[in-house]
Order: sequence, then structure tokens, then C-alpha cells
Amino acid sequence: MRKVAIVGVGMTKFGEEWNRGFRDLILEAGIKALEDANLSGKEIDAIYCGTMAPGPLIGQEHAAALLADWMGLNPIPSTRVEAACASGGVALRQGYLAVASGLHDCVVVGGVEKMTDVPGPDVISTLGGAGDEEWELFFGATFPAIYALMAKRYMYEFNATEEQLAAVAVKNHKHGAKNKYAQFQKEIDIKTVLSSKVVAWPLKVFDCSPITDGAAAVVLMPLEKAKKIVEQPIEIVASAQASDTLALHDRESLTELKATKIAAKKAFEQAGLQPKDVDVAEVHDCFTIAEILAIEDIGFFEKGKGGTAAENSLTEIGGQIPINTSGGLKACGHPVGATGIKQAVEITWQLREQANSRQVKGAKIGLTHNVGGSGATCVIHIMKNPAKF
Amino acid sequence: MRKVAIVGVGMTKFGEEWNRGFRDLILEAGIKALEDANLSGKEIDAIYCGTMAPGPLIGQEHAAALLADWMGLNPIPSTRVEAACASGGVALRQGYLAVASGLHDCVVVGGVEKMTDVPGPDVISTLGGAGDEEWELFFGATFPAIYALMAKRYMYEFNATEEQLAAVAVKNHKHGAKNKYAQFQKEIDIKTVLSSKVVAWPLKVFDCSPITDGAAAVVLMPLEKAKKIVEQPIEIVASAQASDTLALHDRESLTELKATKIAAKKAFEQAGLQPKDVDVAEVHDCFTIAEILAIEDIGFFEKGKGGTAAENSLTEIGGQIPINTSGGLKACGHPVGATGIKQAVEITWQLREQANSRQVKGAKIGLTHNVGGSGATCVIHIMKNPAKF
Repeated sequence: MRKVAIVGVGMTKFGEEWNRGFRDLILEAGIKALEDANLSGKEIDAIYCGTMAPGPLIGQEHAAALLADWMGLNPIPSTRVEAACASGGVALRQGYLAVASGLHDCVVVGGVEKMTDVPGPDVISTLGGAGDEEWELFFGATFPAIYALMAKRYMYEFNATEEQLAAVAVKNHKHGAKNKYAQFQKEIDIKTVLSSKVVAWPLKVFDCSPITDGAAAVVLMPLEKAKKIVEQPIEIVASAQASDTLALHDRESLTELKATKIAAKKAFEQAGLQPKDVDVAEVHDCFTIAEILAIEDIGFFEKGKGGTAAENSLTEIGGQIPINTSGGLKACGHPVGATGIKQAVEITWQLREQANSRQVKGAKIGLTHNVGGSGATCVIHIMKNPAKF
Repeated sequence: MRKVAIVGVGMTKFGEEWNRGFRDLILEAGIKALEDANLSGKEIDAIYCGTMAPGPLIGQEHAAALLADWMGLNPIPSTRVEAACASGGVALRQGYLAVASGLHDCVVVGGVEKMTDVPGPDVISTLGGAGDEEWELFFGATFPAIYALMAKRYMYEFNATEEQLAAVAVKNHKHGAKNKYAQFQKEIDIKTVLSSKVVAWPLKVFDCSPITDGAAAVVLMPLEKAKKIVEQPIEIVASAQASDTLALHDRESLTELKATKIAAKKAFEQAGLQPKDVDVAEVHDCFTIAEILAIEDIGFFEKGKGGTAAENSLTEIGGQIPINTSGGLKACGHPVGATGIKQAVEITWQLREQANSRQVKGAKIGLTHNVGGSGATCVIHIMKNPAKF
């Protein structure tokens, strides 16, 4: 397998894009990524597109063909990949494999979701399809409810507090305030989170990621070729994916995501690295509890210590391991199919030292962690900037 | 890249499965494919799943995780691929690439669709999402209408007749009558087709493939390893995919699918074969006109001669090139995500000489052709039985 690098990245501003459609978003992100790589469309061999639910949300399936069409890239193969909220990460993995295997020399991987074109309740039930429709959604368990079960159990097992959950949101809004692409660029305080409306106790409005429109794209190439066309290719040194039961009730534990643990173990093995080697990470904080579980399951903190890590600012920029410098799903926003790609865009900027006021100084190694549903799919990528080694 | 072979195949009966759900169907097909390969779940490294629209049709996204879950195959990576009606074929291609690249040694590729759980009009609009939602479906152009435009133009350019279209349906029902897995196992005559209700002139009810529930699965391995575990591994000697515009109005011609032509050219080049070398083919006959275009665009017949080929029985079992021995989408049924995999199952049976009364004698080389929407995605696989060479 060949070494693979990211040579170009691009994303739209995340938010409520009332005046733009799915096509506009994916086109903007794709063109930006090509421009960033100094490539024209002629050099692209294949496309992968991660999007969760364009059928229910905009009446359009076959989204990868649409992307090829709107980017003027026909007749190259264009393939949509879906794994709920991990659609972007899984698409990135397919693109990585296509280049690593020698099949393609230049691949665009896009992620996109247009979520605000249908009424809120329809979005909620569509997102519920990321879990087990027959055993969860059908009985009324929306995603805040599912993650609330995890949060309650976590608080019970580890004496965690609502303040610790809130600390994750406060930190991610602080980071998001420094990111011009974020949906929410405003800092909040603990009190704001704690006094916000309860969605599913202990999760309140400010513990939940928002409904968002947005797109992101990356361009991949073999590392050796990448070195010739860009100054700072970002190497993908590991790509790992794992599965778990769709329904929460089938799992052994409510306070860990097994798929995250397995994917992290595989990824660190592939990279020959350990969690302590990572300088910056984007993890899947669809709810505040999700970030706490993630930083434990990946191995940044011991099980049960994620809450205090957040409370003690260990996960802030400048802390022990800066988590979600983009603002995360919480403040940067969560256009589900785009999220996994946005994470790769942010880590690329960090490793290139292009993250402006949210730059993690000297970041050499980064990690992205993307979760589908309540953890039935997890995909992890580890990246490094070879110029810094 | 390594040589890749199909070592096991399985499918459910296609039809209206009122008493069984999505999970039952995919589980049956998956287990049958494993049994056919004499493998247990432990030997599987990864799953790919092709399904078009489980979100709109059964409220369930994240279908690949569901498949891994129900087959008891966690925690291996499981990835859903979608390209409208070509979802199965594109999933097969991803599985093929995963094995060819050396990434995985044993991959299950499943295809599934459960279409009868929602009212007919909802299925029609969901399928409309395979085309261009903004420029076709939104204005009322359902799929029969889109293919009717192609049929009309084809009749105009090549003096083709409604009888020629009907001949495709009659032939595919004749084949389907020999297939115990087919939705319709009853022969029909030209008069039945011509006198059936017009859906979108010149297409009548019997020119259209039906709404179907069903699933199919194949197991892939490197050829060298496959030879050790099964008597007749079926080698995939080519896999090619191409894209075209989503909307019909953006194309240069209404009487060919450019993506089919490009994918076919690439596939024959990869295989080092020509159309005349193929002994049996499953092509995408979502409507009778689609089969006529396909057999021309692949290169079995000259442009404009596909209609007369059907009329003169050249595409029947026993004819020049037997097309759709399974009954095709028309008679075997069209559970959209399953169709591309069902094609591979049928060709495997043909090349192993296990197709019973519909066997094409001595078939050595087979081809599958799977189309997404009105041709925005096309994927072609060529297979051979190495034991016959």
C-alpha cells in the first residue's frame, strides 16, 4: 500500500444556509479544495462523497453522481458512502484506500448535508435513522434521548457532574469563536449551558450539536507525488474503522463506545504511535457526553477522567491535548455528512500552521474521530506533517 | 492488484415480502452466501452493502452497520454504498477493490431493498431521487417518463417499434419463468405487453420493472486463496465505473448511455476481451428500452440494432448472446440496491453451470451491467470461470 497525503482542503461556512442549496455547498467546498491543491478538474481520477440522508432531507439520492456533474468531472467514477454521522469519515477512508492501493492517483472526497430545508421534526426523525429504527426510533428514542442514557450512566458510574458536561460545550464555543467557518462564533459560560432548556436530562440545548448546512472536501494523492505539487502535504498515517451494534441495549457498556476503542487501537498500531503522541484532535462531540467518552476511548485520558479533563481545561488550546479546535460539532456545527471531512480539513490546517488564532503551536500529529449513530460505526484517521519530522 | 474471485453467492426470492423485513432479507442472503462458500463469519474481514433508499423506505439509515450487527459480524468495518439503482454494482466494485488492493482477504458484499412498506406514490417519488430532483422530479418527471423520452427518441431515430420493446419483456418473462427466485415466473406474449396500460407512452406496464423486496450477497476472496476453498471460484476480471450528468437534458444523446459506453470500454480493456467473447450477460432493464440501449452501448449489437435483436430472439437463451437469463429487472424483479448483486449471483450460477433449466451451455465468460438513475452512474463487471480455461 502506498503512503497517502492530503494536498488540498476546502469547506463552506457552516450554518443555516437559507439561500443556498446542496449543490452550491458541495461545489464551493470541492472547488476550494482543488484551488488549495493548485489542481484542475482534469487531474482528478475519482470522487467519494459522504452524505447521510439527502433522500429524506432534499429528495435527492445519487448524490455522488450529482457532485461529479456539478463539478464538471464526468465521466470519472463517483461513489457515495453513508454511515450516518460517520459518512464523511468513512468516505475519507474509501478515498484513502483507493489511493493507497494504487488504483487512483488523485481523488476528491467530499462531505455534505443540507438539513434546514425540511421542518425540524422531520430532521429529528431522519437523524433517528442513524440508530436502530425498529428498537429505538420507533419507540420514540431520538438521539438526545439515546446519548442522555449514556450520560446518566456515566454520571452514575464516575460521579461526573452536569458542570463537567457543560465544560465541554463552553470550551468548544471558545474554540468556535476563533473559527470564521463555525456556525456559532460566540463564547458561552457554564451558567448559560446549565440554565438552558433540558432536551433529555442531563442534556440541555447547549449540550447538543445543532442542525447545520455545510460541505467540506479534501484532495488525496500518493505522498511522493504530493511532495512535488504542494509545500506541506499532510500524510494520512492510519485509517481504521470498526462496527458495533446499532441499538444501545445490545451493548455491554453504556459508558464507552467499543467501536471507538477498536478503531483507535488499530489506528495507533498502523501509525506506530500512541495517544500521547497526538498534538491535536477533532473528536465526535454530537453531544457533550460524546466528547468525554471519545477522549477516554481513544486513550487520551483514563476511563472516568474525561469529565474532569474538560473541567480542568486540559482539552483547550494550550492544554494537555487540544480537542476540537474547530469548535467541534457543538460550535462549528454538524452537517452530518460533512463533519468527518471538516475534521480532516481542520487537522490539515493545524498541521500546516494555518489555523490562525486557534493554532496549536507546533502541532505535528493530528487525529480525527467520526462516529455514526450512537457508535455503531467509528472511523479514525491519524495524520502528520512530514515536513516537521 | 491481486486477482479477485467470487467464492459464495446467495439471494432471497424476489417479490412482495409482506411478512419479512429488511433485516430478514439481508440476513438470509448473507448467510446463504457464507454457506455457499463454506465459510463462517469469523473469516470475514469487511462488509460492503449496497442499498438505495432505506431512509425514505423503512426509516433506517446506517444500513451497513445494521447488516454487520444482524449477521453477528461486529466489529469488522461495514460500509454502505449508494448510487441509486446501481448501488449493488458499485458496492461490488468497492468490495472488489478492497480485496484486489490487498487490504482485505475476505469481504461480504450485500445488496438489499425493502420497497413495499410504504405507499406506491412514496416509492415513486423516492425512486425519482435517482434522477435530478431539482430539474426532473420536481417538475413531475418520474422514471417511466424519463425512460419514455429515451424510448420515443430511439423509435424516431431508428424506426424502432413498440413490438420490439415488447419483445424484451416477453423474453425476460420467458427467462424468469425458469427462475425460482424471480418475482414473476409466468410467461407473457407480445399482445399482453402491447395491450397493457400505458404508463408513459410508449412504455406500458409490462415495459416497466416492478417494485420489489429482496436481497442478494456475494463473498469475495483473492483468487489464489479462493482456489483452495471452493471448486469453482468465479474470477472478476474487470470492474469499471463511469458517471454522466444526472439530468437527461444535459446529455448529448438520448439514445445511448455514455456512462455505459465508457465503463464497457474500460472493462473490456481491463479484461483483455471483446463483447463477442461474452457468453452471458445481465444488463440493467429497468424498462424495456433500457435493455435495448444497454446491449448496444456495451457493444453486443450495433447502435440501432438492439430492437431487432430482441425481436429476432438473438438475446434469448440459445441465441447469439443470452441477456438477462435471471429474468432481468423486468421479471426477476428490481429491489434497487439488490439488483447489482443479484446480477453477479446469476452470472456466478451460469459460469458454474448451476442455472438449471435456464443454463447457457458452456458459459465461460459473463458480464453484469448496473445503471443508476437514467444513466448518471454505470458499473460493469466481467467474470470468468478459470476452471474452463
